[in-house]
Amino acid sequence: MSGFRHVVVFRWRDDATAEQKKTVEERLRELPGAIPELRAYAFGRDAGINAGNFDFAVVADFADRDAYLVYRDNPTHRAIVDEVINPITAERHAVQYVLEP
Amino acid sequence: MSGFRHVVVFRWRDDATAEQKKTVEERLRELPGAIPELRAYAFGRDAGINAGNFDFAVVADFADRDAYLVYRDNPTHRAIVDEVINPITAERHAVQYVLEP
Repeated sequence: MSGFRHVVVFRWRDDATAEQKKTVEERLRELPGAIPELRAYAFGRDAGINAGNFDFAVVADFADRDAYLVYRDNPTHRAIVDEVINPITAERHAVQYVLEP
Repeated sequence: MSGFRHVVVFRWRDDATAEQKKTVEERLRELPGAIPELRAYAFGRDAGINAGNFDFAVVADFADRDAYLVYRDNPTHRAIVDEVINPITAERHAVQYVLEP
């Protein structure tokens, strides 16, 4: 299916607590209901199979680039990033790319 | 849909050529035909919207963790990693996670 995908991986700070990590997931679950442009949204904790992995990933699919920008700049999303994600993030790397049909 | 997802993002070396980057994509296109366990496979170059992004992402979906391991260890896949991905990779970060239904 064609579209536009946002991929982001996080390494949490060593001092991030279990409660803080759980709060990230709870808050992100608000977003599909708040942002109709989110066509698919799936995040999760690393399964622990491979050494050296990051801790958490988010993959969000949209109809197109403009729909992604709505998500990126959505105030509820920005609040979650500022309030619960940034405080425990050690490293973050992202890619957005076109989904070929 | 439940399942298991592999997410990986790459930053290419500054001296990676356009030809090398194109070869990565051409070779990765072989994999869905070679690995039946690959339920969905979508990779792409960063769209250039956000400063500081990585260069390339791969998202691969599987029925479960065992199917992911088949992909990870598949000889064709390993050859692509060794021959065309590793030589141009400056940074690579991955997460595997369970897809909730």
